[in-house]
Amino acid sequence: MDKSEIRKRVLEDKKKHHNYIPPTYFIIQFSNKIKAETIEWLTNKIKTDREQGGAELQVRKQPILETQKHNVTIHISADSERLLELAQELDVKKIDKISHPYEFTYHDFIPSEDKLTTAEKQVLVRHELENIRALLHETYIPGYPDKHLYEGQSILSAYLYHGLVKQVFPLHDMTALLKLRSVWHFSLFNKQPYEEIRSYFGESVTLYFQFLGFYTAFLTLPMMLGFFQWFVAPDSVAFFCIINIIGAAIFLEVWQRKCTELAFIWGTISMASSLDDPRPNFIGVMGKDVVTERLQPQSPRWKTNVKMYCVSFPLVFLCMIGGFIVMLASFWIEDLLKSYPDLPWFIYYVPSSVYAGMIYVMNMFYRQLANFLTEWENHRTQSQFDRHRVTKLVPFEFVNNFMSLFYIAFIYQDMDMLKYQLATLLIILQFINNIQEAVLPVVIQYYKKKKADAIRESPPLLSECLLDVEELDPHDPQVIQAEEECRMEPYEDPYDDYLELFVQFGYVFLFSSISPMAAFWAVLNNIFEIWTDSFKLCYLHQRPMARRVKDTGAWQRAFQTLCTISIMTNCALFALSPALKSMAPAMSPVEWVLLFVGIEHLLLFIKQILHFAIPDKPDWVRIALAKIGYQSTKALKKQRLENRRLRKISEFLPNKESLKID
Amino acid sequence: MDKSEIRKRVLEDKKKHHNYIPPTYFIIQFSNKIKAETIEWLTNKIKTDREQGGAELQVRKQPILETQKHNVTIHISADSERLLELAQELDVKKIDKISHPYEFTYHDFIPSEDKLTTAEKQVLVRHELENIRALLHETYIPGYPDKHLYEGQSILSAYLYHGLVKQVFPLHDMTALLKLRSVWHFSLFNKQPYEEIRSYFGESVTLYFQFLGFYTAFLTLPMMLGFFQWFVAPDSVAFFCIINIIGAAIFLEVWQRKCTELAFIWGTISMASSLDDPRPNFIGVMGKDVVTERLQPQSPRWKTNVKMYCVSFPLVFLCMIGGFIVMLASFWIEDLLKSYPDLPWFIYYVPSSVYAGMIYVMNMFYRQLANFLTEWENHRTQSQFDRHRVTKLVPFEFVNNFMSLFYIAFIYQDMDMLKYQLATLLIILQFINNIQEAVLPVVIQYYKKKKADAIRESPPLLSECLLDVEELDPHDPQVIQAEEECRMEPYEDPYDDYLELFVQFGYVFLFSSISPMAAFWAVLNNIFEIWTDSFKLCYLHQRPMARRVKDTGAWQRAFQTLCTISIMTNCALFALSPALKSMAPAMSPVEWVLLFVGIEHLLLFIKQILHFAIPDKPDWVRIALAKIGYQSTKALKKQRLENRRLRKISEFLPNKESLKID
Repeated sequence: MDKSEIRKRVLEDKKKHHNYIPPTYFIIQFSNKIKAETIEWLTNKIKTDREQGGAELQVRKQPILETQKHNVTIHISADSERLLELAQELDVKKIDKISHPYEFTYHDFIPSEDKLTTAEKQVLVRHELENIRALLHETYIPGYPDKHLYEGQSILSAYLYHGLVKQVFPLHDMTALLKLRSVWHFSLFNKQPYEEIRSYFGESVTLYFQFLGFYTAFLTLPMMLGFFQWFVAPDSVAFFCIINIIGAAIFLEVWQRKCTELAFIWGTISMASSLDDPRPNFIGVMGKDVVTERLQPQSPRWKTNVKMYCVSFPLVFLCMIGGFIVMLASFWIEDLLKSYPDLPWFIYYVPSSVYAGMIYVMNMFYRQLANFLTEWENHRTQSQFDRHRVTKLVPFEFVNNFMSLFYIAFIYQDMDMLKYQLATLLIILQFINNIQEAVLPVVIQYYKKKKADAIRESPPLLSECLLDVEELDPHDPQVIQAEEECRMEPYEDPYDDYLELFVQFGYVFLFSSISPMAAFWAVLNNIFEIWTDSFKLCYLHQRPMARRVKDTGAWQRAFQTLCTISIMTNCALFALSPALKSMAPAMSPVEWVLLFVGIEHLLLFIKQILHFAIPDKPDWVRIALAKIGYQSTKALKKQRLENRRLRKISEFLPNKESLKID
Repeated sequence: MDKSEIRKRVLEDKKKHHNYIPPTYFIIQFSNKIKAETIEWLTNKIKTDREQGGAELQVRKQPILETQKHNVTIHISADSERLLELAQELDVKKIDKISHPYEFTYHDFIPSEDKLTTAEKQVLVRHELENIRALLHETYIPGYPDKHLYEGQSILSAYLYHGLVKQVFPLHDMTALLKLRSVWHFSLFNKQPYEEIRSYFGESVTLYFQFLGFYTAFLTLPMMLGFFQWFVAPDSVAFFCIINIIGAAIFLEVWQRKCTELAFIWGTISMASSLDDPRPNFIGVMGKDVVTERLQPQSPRWKTNVKMYCVSFPLVFLCMIGGFIVMLASFWIEDLLKSYPDLPWFIYYVPSSVYAGMIYVMNMFYRQLANFLTEWENHRTQSQFDRHRVTKLVPFEFVNNFMSLFYIAFIYQDMDMLKYQLATLLIILQFINNIQEAVLPVVIQYYKKKKADAIRESPPLLSECLLDVEELDPHDPQVIQAEEECRMEPYEDPYDDYLELFVQFGYVFLFSSISPMAAFWAVLNNIFEIWTDSFKLCYLHQRPMARRVKDTGAWQRAFQTLCTISIMTNCALFALSPALKSMAPAMSPVEWVLLFVGIEHLLLFIKQILHFAIPDKPDWVRIALAKIGYQSTKALKKQRLENRRLRKISEFLPNKESLKID
């Protein structure tokens, strides 16, 4: 069955469905200052055949409504046939009955694309949009001769970079979304409808919810232990605390394992930075890729490494020091104020309030710096980019969130203050966070609408351009939907959500010998968090870009590090505990310190052993991967032998015709 | 060009060389108590066609000479054609011009096997010998109805296990050996003829010499620093010492990298326990392998794991405790004796001499225990077996070699004694070791010869059996050679050689702040070591079995651990140093301890960072592997699509003939 035959069947299928128009997958909203020819150029690129460097997708324009502001907005969609072609080309994988993934082929799917999930379709269309790249002779953006392009640059990302396109986002698929909402909101933390979430939001978001569920389930152990501690003598706290920390270490190893399993089932496990397509913003000279031999932008890795090690890391380190100094300053000023007992009461709260404000401002700036640096380092793939961005952000967040607690614990050695601070942070701040996540987007949306209603004076550009592009029926529900979603905030990635969990993990484990009830509050918060996060995604934000991921990336390492640090902090807290010291009054201070240094080393050693003893891959995944590897190697060998045979035969051909050898 | 054609060409080639007899690759020497039918059975198996469960190799018998003792001895060899077949089957890899390995095929090699190295031929023949496995109906060894066989058991290893075969070893290839000797003995430590060593001794031995050379080259850094320390103030020792340890950490990471590179060039990098053939001693039920679908003995992995975690590990731990107690006892007794000042002088040396003797005895027993346990755990592949054996042996060796030094350093805190001990161990013991390695085998060989000459009364069994097997010409040099090599000691594996380096690494780095000159002695020793080891292999031992390896396995981890421990010990030595303490007289003891705990944590952190920052694979290897992976996946996909197409076609065939699909 060849391509033309499939095409015919698909067309027949369309006729049956009479006047079938594929749904909108993406919305591109142009800036209202853009020139008509610039819009025309991109739109043409999207429609043009692939052979001529286009994306071969369908474009329709958003009609002008009474309520609409005047940015030109286009709808991108693709028909079944195109989607099926792409799915085969980009190796979409499906799961067979024994949950082994297999590669997609045309034949499995015709006559319709129903077996592709809505997230997969989104990924396919986005891949095509992002891969519209400038050709050799296209040296600038039409209408803007000063905005240069280089060969191989992603045109859409150039438009975004220069502010010519205001936003690009996938449109919600209301049928699928309604179905998802109905099953999700009434599910408990560990029984979320992961498969449905994945087919709607893609792997990245699903992995976050899997992690959240898994982590919360694990937290019930420290929660139980916390309750239990009420009934035992306070000097046995150390024992519970050690169980907690080893539990956390095991949890992280088991999560890693689960991650591999998921990645295998999702078919993302073989994702490697050397095989992935480059990010649209990746800057490089067009060239043959050394691995895939595809024509892609190329840039040597050492440049990225030099930038990272010589510029970014020192800068990140300086910023951490900066954050640390600001914290010290706030404590010094507070101490200074306390030496004047006659000041009005609220003055004493000024330093810590100012510090809280400064953290917020510093974070904002630092985030921009981290984004800029990571972009400038020019990582080839999205997953590398994400990993290095998170690696830059986490240490700074660590300083901001935990350093003041360290200061209270080990410099002030004021355990009551530490307890009070921890409780405040854990209960109140997290509660506020949740409310804010659920409420803030609604407020922003409201104000955007008001603002949009206000600016109506700019000329309607739409009448001047895209005359040959079909306009959507104004009664099409997608028109209203597009308008509404244009005003929503985008959901960038689960970074903030992971960060919340990271900070919470720190609060629970770093000082777990001081705050046995922390886990309880964390569990409570997380149950609420699942609800707000799902609400946020289903109601308040634009549909997120589905991203294929194979693990929690830099977060796994961040949590691991936090776990190691909590071994150290808790041992230090034990050493400071008067209850424990009273049990061994005969020991000298040096012996006492050495005892806990010893315990700490023992725990670190146990953590290391656990790391080696719990394999990253479950046995069945290991075997399945080995099998695929073995079969692939065999297939390659066979192909090579075959080619060599063909070459031999061609030597004997009278007219030296060369046979096709690949 | 098909098989029959190749066969013809090879035969023609043979005719040209007139009466060509392939050289002996292996010698099998039977026990002198064995029955004739038992000899016949194995010999027949070796000669029989593969289809009937034989090895299809050539067998000739050793003639009875005047000087020979009467064990029946046979020579195993294989002709070019058989070797070429095997080479293709077992994926022997060769390196192309840009040092990328490619799979072997017939066509690259005919008409002769010259391109196969002598080590490769040995591996191929051994593989066939070890893979003669018992069939379903062969439930016992002929002649010994009480010696049971199970289906799939390796017959040769059953013979060895029951003592029916005295020894199996590869015969030296004198032409190749002479060539190797001539280039090796006059080469410096870092410029050894690695490629020649590999083609004669195989990867395992070569990797050891590569490591030895690389490690010795690195040791020149601490050696230089050691000399330099004479000219600076003693309080800057700490600084040099930290450089040393970080240097060692970097060395280990770089070695790991070099290892990957070598494994790639050698074509062993894709060796994985799931693909390797099972060890001959692996016990399991015959079944289809889940990965390769070949018929092989199968045994579930969890059984091995349970044995390992529930029995072996606790036993190893107990033995370590035992070794520790013996050490303590020796120190206690020594202390006790010192309280009687009137005893004769030599009495004071008794405890440490007895301890040294006990270590030797304990080691011997422990080695047997470790071998037994690892065999009992039933690991599937040789590399797993080696890894787990080393993992058991190293901790015990650690206790025996270093614990007494720890005791002197941290309990006695007698730095002069420590220095003295270190110097003794490093210089004298290592020197003795080297001499012993070079001399002992000569002595053993001499006594074996004497003993062999003495027992001449046992009846010559040879006249009764193997009547249909061709006898070698008594003037063939291989006959004398076989006789001589039968008396040599086998060279099991480089375990003892690695152990020597491991102990030396410990002496140099664990207490490097105390003994700056240790590196110098180590370098001196290693230069000598290269010479003795190569001498040992080329002159004194039976030719070792060539083993394919991809890394130093458990040794890498052992060295890493030692490096981590040396960070700890050196920081502890700093804290004990009076010279350093005098620089900060104002610090309290607790602060002083905490300072060095802090430094230790910082160094451990740096080591961890180095581990992440230095990638295991050089870029070119990473890319080459990714390319192979990509091409294999593509080939597999193509093959699957092709198969599906064929299946479709076969559905339309009138007589439902099934096409061949693989």
